[in-house]
Amino acid sequence: MVETKITAEPGTAQIIIEREFDAPRDLVFRAYTEPELLVQWLGPRDLAMKIEEFDVRDGGKWRYISTDADGNEYGFHGVFHGTPTPDATVQTFEFEGVPGHVALERLTLEEQDGRTLVRTLSSFQSVEDRDGMVASGMERGVRDSDERLAELLKRLQND
Amino acid sequence: MVETKITAEPGTAQIIIEREFDAPRDLVFRAYTEPELLVQWLGPRDLAMKIEEFDVRDGGKWRYISTDADGNEYGFHGVFHGTPTPDATVQTFEFEGVPGHVALERLTLEEQDGRTLVRTLSSFQSVEDRDGMVASGMERGVRDSDERLAELLKRLQND
Repeated sequence: MVETKITAEPGTAQIIIEREFDAPRDLVFRAYTEPELLVQWLGPRDLAMKIEEFDVRDGGKWRYISTDADGNEYGFHGVFHGTPTPDATVQTFEFEGVPGHVALERLTLEEQDGRTLVRTLSSFQSVEDRDGMVASGMERGVRDSDERLAELLKRLQND
Repeated sequence: MVETKITAEPGTAQIIIEREFDAPRDLVFRAYTEPELLVQWLGPRDLAMKIEEFDVRDGGKWRYISTDADGNEYGFHGVFHGTPTPDATVQTFEFEGVPGHVALERLTLEEQDGRTLVRTLSSFQSVEDRDGMVASGMERGVRDSDERLAELLKRLQND
């Protein structure tokens, strides 16, 4: 079984998330950059996700809101830096619950034999920020998201 | 004599720049956020600086170009994240000579007895990116800039 690998070396300000998907990288890139696909997999299963803005271009902004069963809302936003491509998509990432704590994400998609290795490098402004993100329970969100993305990619290829 | 302190701990992806100025922090903040003041001190003395865009607000963009005596142009740009205040100004920073290498900067101004400690924390996406910035000769630019800023702050207070 394929599993998501999350690496957070002690004392560094980074998190590396890696997972291989059984799909060509152009399709994976579409799932990351087309809002109507993204909304189908990003976030934990028990939260509803709504995309407010998703402007995939150099300097373009994105924002989405996750809502839990009790109606609590969690907002996230960021800005794309450079033109997003399958080789590299760089963006900032902010959880609106802790304003002023900005992370930089670098997403790379690498294809081999029709499968795609997705790697996300998140760089924080301090080890404390990084540790705070790990402690927030992000792992559940990441694993849920990746399972849902694998299911979506399978559906899209079977269509 | 006041000197700029530049700290780049081995193996980390950060640079910390600290310097105290003999001026109240509101004036220092103005020098950082008003383009007509910024252009008077930012950059090495022997380069001409031109601000193309400087939109000081959450999500606002900035861009400037430095031109050397031979006419070579060096472009830099970024995006403000959160509303800039003297307490904290967070922005991304990109040198257009190496696209895709984005840094996050956090500027804080701390006043004590009419003097202001300026601290810039730059976080890079890798130790290599950080080391590349150090190797690029940024130190000369930083020290020149700080000297010019000290002179500008003196002029502004004598006016």
